Amino acid sequence: MKIEELGERGLIERITKKFRIEKPVVTVGAGEDDCAVIEIDAAKKESKYLVLTTDTLQQSTHFPDGITAFQMGWSAVAANLSDIAAMGAVPFAFTISTGIPARTEVSFVDELLRGIETCASTYNTAVVGGDVVLSNEFILTGMCIGFTNDPVRRSGANLGDLLCVTGSLGNAALAMKIIKNELKVKEVPEHIEESAKKSLFQPQPRVNEGFVIANSGVVTSMIDISDGLAISIAELTRCSNLGAELYKENVPVFSEEIRSRLDLSVRECIEIAFYYGGDYELLFTIDPLALEDERLMSKLKREAKMSIIGKLVLPEEGIYFEIGGVDVEKEPIEIRGYQHF
Amino acid sequence: MKIEELGERGLIERITKKFRIEKPVVTVGAGEDDCAVIEIDAAKKESKYLVLTTDTLQQSTHFPDGITAFQMGWSAVAANLSDIAAMGAVPFAFTISTGIPARTEVSFVDELLRGIETCASTYNTAVVGGDVVLSNEFILTGMCIGFTNDPVRRSGANLGDLLCVTGSLGNAALAMKIIKNELKVKEVPEHIEESAKKSLFQPQPRVNEGFVIANSGVVTSMIDISDGLAISIAELTRCSNLGAELYKENVPVFSEEIRSRLDLSVRECIEIAFYYGGDYELLFTIDPLALEDERLMSKLKREAKMSIIGKLVLPEEGIYFEIGGVDVEKEPIEIRGYQHF
Repeated sequence: MKIEELGERGLIERITKKFRIEKPVVTVGAGEDDCAVIEIDAAKKESKYLVLTTDTLQQSTHFPDGITAFQMGWSAVAANLSDIAAMGAVPFAFTISTGIPARTEVSFVDELLRGIETCASTYNTAVVGGDVVLSNEFILTGMCIGFTNDPVRRSGANLGDLLCVTGSLGNAALAMKIIKNELKVKEVPEHIEESAKKSLFQPQPRVNEGFVIANSGVVTSMIDISDGLAISIAELTRCSNLGAELYKENVPVFSEEIRSRLDLSVRECIEIAFYYGGDYELLFTIDPLALEDERLMSKLKREAKMSIIGKLVLPEEGIYFEIGGVDVEKEPIEIRGYQHF
Repeated sequence: MKIEELGERGLIERITKKFRIEKPVVTVGAGEDDCAVIEIDAAKKESKYLVLTTDTLQQSTHFPDGITAFQMGWSAVAANLSDIAAMGAVPFAFTISTGIPARTEVSFVDELLRGIETCASTYNTAVVGGDVVLSNEFILTGMCIGFTNDPVRRSGANLGDLLCVTGSLGNAALAMKIIKNELKVKEVPEHIEESAKKSLFQPQPRVNEGFVIANSGVVTSMIDISDGLAISIAELTRCSNLGAELYKENVPVFSEEIRSRLDLSVRECIEIAFYYGGDYELLFTIDPLALEDERLMSKLKREAKMSIIGKLVLPEEGIYFEIGGVDVEKEPIEIRGYQHF
């Protein structure tokens, strides 16, 4: 059955049935009334701040070939959760507005909804509302609210702070290169292909990592890097009015195994890590005094998968790679990244 | 200049400049960081509940021919505010995600943004965030949060409660009939045409009316009727598990002048009032004891433009017009309304 046969009310009923709530403080959930209703004090607990964000994913621009309906729904939630994570906040509730082509099979929509519900519940977020329209292509607009006592801004970095990222970079870009057949090697080992594709098709927002970083006591600024690392470094340093010195060899991009199996040079790895979007990781800065606290450092490495990739310098120095040697040399980095149009 | 020449970052900068904030409790506004940040206690004041809603308007489905860019932006905000109003809540902050065709003139987008900003600020709502993508047609997804101490549900009506609406019905439908040349008379007086078109193109969400009703002490349920009056009566009675008896002559549809100038029969007026969408009015029920409080009744008539159009009856009686006379007769009403697909 196609969704145009189901009709608007039929579809909305089908959707809202899947999002029956969970959280007792959500007094009114999806499809039950004109608005969702949330008991604020119970929801926010001790938090002083409400954070909110909206992010749209659209088939022609954001969804790579081969993505499943489940993964489309998952990604629409993940994109919004990544913004919440970048403030160090805890996500609470989510709404989703969906444009769907009229000839879509109802079973496809069911899978899309399952992806939305699975990602939201994985991160303890309630789907509390939404809307649905017919459109030429899939277009998913999510909106997420969360709470925090101490939102981590892009603008808080200080001169000398250490520049860090979570996780491992370049996996989404690697999947795109595999799909487009742009690698030098003809055969990519299956486990490498699978893990890269999972990063691209079903990205994991760094909600827990963002929370650990925000509560470390040493973080000074944070930003989501899904638009690309280079452009995110440029944005963070612009907001903090500073420059950045980067260490190529510290950038966490692929394992030794992947580099050698795929015959990738350091230059190629850096290109992949810096100039492609799709890595749902966080870029942040910490006070260099943190280095003296071994327990904290090992907690950040373990729980936030932190790598230190550089430090903040005076704004007139710009953004550059430090080339080691007796006299330190600088290789300016180009600021380009992923713009959707 | 077209927006595709401006690029994504250029467009976002242009947009966020227009939404520089206003409210001191909005710590971080549109385009400043990964999320907007709001000081909850200062924003909610004494309210116990956060309400949130999302609504999408799309050119091919929701925007009538002849609508301006300003009015498209206005309407995207108004549709969401109408949902907030239907809970009796006070709107606080708004985000807007916009799909825009690549060949759109930047000046058109500027007007669209001016419409968003004007509607939001008219109702004391801060635009705190958004997103923008290229799409085949305009598609505007708004999300609004508000606060209230006492959300008015669809499901609270009791047997014997009075069924009421705000304002005057049928104006948006009249404008559609004028545009489509579906009226019997050839010449519609200019002031009638103008006022009808304003209802259709630039609807006024009943935020103040909703607040007055919610705080009257006598309201038991409320719903927005922008999908049509008949379908909204059906929804409110379904949620409250009741039926409704309606009085045709009490339904506030057009002035005597309009009826006669446009040669409209009572049947046609009722058809227009019940079965077309686009009236941004509120349907609500009040305790019949309210009738004894003359001051309250005149306040509701004056400030919420209330008309009493029926009363709630047992569910097995259904929804019908009462036809006066010695033996009361019933004319069942058909439940159909505006479905977008």
